[in-house]
Parts: sequence; C-alpha cells; structure tokens
Amino acid sequence: MKLLYADASPFARKVRAVAYELGLQDRIALDFIKAVPGAEPNRELGAANPLRKIPTLLLDDGRSIYDSTVICEYLDGLVPEIALIPSDGAQRAEVMTEHALANGLMDAAVGLRYETAVRPEDARWPSWIADHWDRIDTGLDWFEANSGRLAEPINLAQIALGCLMGYLDFRFAEKGWRSNRPKIAAWGETMLSRPSFTETVPAG
Amino acid sequence: MKLLYADASPFARKVRAVAYELGLQDRIALDFIKAVPGAEPNRELGAANPLRKIPTLLLDDGRSIYDSTVICEYLDGLVPEIALIPSDGAQRAEVMTEHALANGLMDAAVGLRYETAVRPEDARWPSWIADHWDRIDTGLDWFEANSGRLAEPINLAQIALGCLMGYLDFRFAEKGWRSNRPKIAAWGETMLSRPSFTETVPAG
Repeated sequence: MKLLYADASPFARKVRAVAYELGLQDRIALDFIKAVPGAEPNRELGAANPLRKIPTLLLDDGRSIYDSTVICEYLDGLVPEIALIPSDGAQRAEVMTEHALANGLMDAAVGLRYETAVRPEDARWPSWIADHWDRIDTGLDWFEANSGRLAEPINLAQIALGCLMGYLDFRFAEKGWRSNRPKIAAWGETMLSRPSFTETVPAG
Repeated sequence: MKLLYADASPFARKVRAVAYELGLQDRIALDFIKAVPGAEPNRELGAANPLRKIPTLLLDDGRSIYDSTVICEYLDGLVPEIALIPSDGAQRAEVMTEHALANGLMDAAVGLRYETAVRPEDARWPSWIADHWDRIDTGLDWFEANSGRLAEPINLAQIALGCLMGYLDFRFAEKGWRSNRPKIAAWGETMLSRPSFTETVPAG
C-alpha cells in the first residue's frame, strides 16, 4: 500500500497514527504530495482522487481509497484483534459522532490556515475567521465538558482529537487552546506522547 | 427522532433520501434550521453540534448524531433488511470511497455557493473558484467513466451522487453538468425520479 500524504496535514496524520496503533506502519509506503487549493492543479493526485485531497491510499491493485475516515476504517478492518471503531450500532454512532466533531474541527482549523496564509490578503473575510474560531472553541469546550469519554480505550475519535491538538500546536500555538481546559490538556499530554504521535510530528 | 435540516442542504437531503429508501421517513420529525457561515452564530444548533452544521439528528434521549454520513450509517443499521452500505470490508471501502467522492464534490459545490453568493464580493478568490469547478468536473468525469458501478443495487454513494446532481441543478443549472456526460445524465433521470428524491426537492 502507498499513502499519498503531507506531514503538515492533520488528516494524513490521523491515518498514519491509526496505522501505528494497528501495527501496520511498515506495510504502508509514504509518498509526499503537494496539494494546495487555489494553486495549479496536481493532476497526478487528481488521477488517484478527483477531489485532489490527501490522504489518499493506493492499494497494490491500483485502486484508491479515500477520504481519511474511509482509509482508517479500511485499515482497522485489516487487524481483527484491534477495533479503533466499535462495531455495535449505538456505541459506533457515539464514537463516530465524536470523531466527526474532532474531524470537523480539524477541517475548520485547516480552513483557517488557508484563509489566513494561502488566500490573498485582500480576499480574506474577518467574520468567517471569527465564526470558525468560535466553532473550534465551542468544540474544544465540548470535549472538556465530556472528558470522561476520553477514558475509554483508544478509538478513532481520540486519535482525531490528538491530531487536532497537534495541528493547533503546529499552526496556531499562539491561540493557547489549553487555557481553561485542564482536563483535555492533561489527556493530550499523554496522547501526544504515544509512538503513533511522536513518530508523526509535522516537520514544519 | 428529530432532524435539524434545511431543504437547500444537499447533505440534509442525503439523510432524508436515505430515510425514504429505508422507509423511516415518518419516524423523523423535521426542524428547519438557519446556519450560514460567517453570520451570527446559531447557538441553539451549536448546543446540539458544536460544528454548527446541518444535518444533525437528535435522538429521543437527547443525544446528537452527526455528520450526515454518520447519520446515514446509523439509520441504515436500524433496518436490517436493507443495506445501503455493504458490511464486507473491500466492497464497503469501494462504496464508501465513491460516497466520499460524491460527498466531497457536494462540499466543493456548497463551498462555491458560499464563495460566490455569501462571501462579500470584494473577498472572493477567482483561482479558488476555478480550482473547485475543475475538481467537480474531474469528479463527474470519473463517474461517467465508471458508470458501470451505478448499475449496482442502490447504495449510499449513489444517493450522494443524486444529491450532488440535484444541488448542481438547484444552484448552478447554467453550468450544464450533463453536457458530454450522457451516461450519468441518463442514470440521474432515473435516480431523481425516485420518491426519495421527488419528496425532497429543495424549495428554493
């Protein structure tokens, strides 16, 4: 298998962290890809994934699997002894909703990076920026208020939350997401020190 | 169950179409919600879903389920006789990748709507717009080239593709997505005439 990725992408990091947690890291070759919205289209990536997004997983038979969540579920299914996504309906919906929250906050954070560093300066929209920071704050507050959920055995939602935290540290350290959130700050210390995270730190 | 939705949202339409296909439409009350990025935050929606996105499903016990894909999977699990998402690993990854493509194109199309109708005129970015139309074209071309896949029994990827087509007709009819894509145009005729689609047409 080959993973089209970039080390700065929190979505690609989620897949890589999942691979480590499953012990699959040595079965996945990494291929660094540059994909910036609004820039010249990367047609090589587009042939594998018309959305031109990373991560995209290429199987040995040439088929592509994406997006990051579909890749994570596929990898999880390769290792029957571990379940990062529960199979039971109600429990699964709960974990996948928490995952959707962490993942959606990653999407907002990456959108903020594009808005404030990639989009031309005169085409930025302050109300959009404020709105999306507010969503990130509201979402992190939700995890702080529901931090008991983070005591569950490791799952895909927790891995996504770790990737969100790592991305905020990487791109928006000055925002100080840990302030007034002691519970998830302490949980994050432990999560980000797992090999799945220490081996996938963005180079910058 | 109560679905927080808007009839213009293709993601909410996907959930509603899935409910129809599963025969669950009468078990889901609809609650129209206004949620526009960059506008005053809808705190009521934020309490149910910190991402402040629709659709969000409220269960009778007060719990929320989101995003649209998680809701669809949850509903699919309520009706054991029908499987809109295959359970087998490889087949599931294939359908969910096709779903991720149609869903990602919906995301691009909704983003284009925001960029060209909601974002202030002087803060629009022509290269981003061109890039995302190109992704939509590339993605529709992929479905045209792989239209054999659409002969499979109805699944979540096909429903998402129908919602994408309906959204392009609704917001961007002048783009003429059917030109040079006779196969998916014919398939779309049939799909959009199913009750799950005729009962969920956006009012405009």
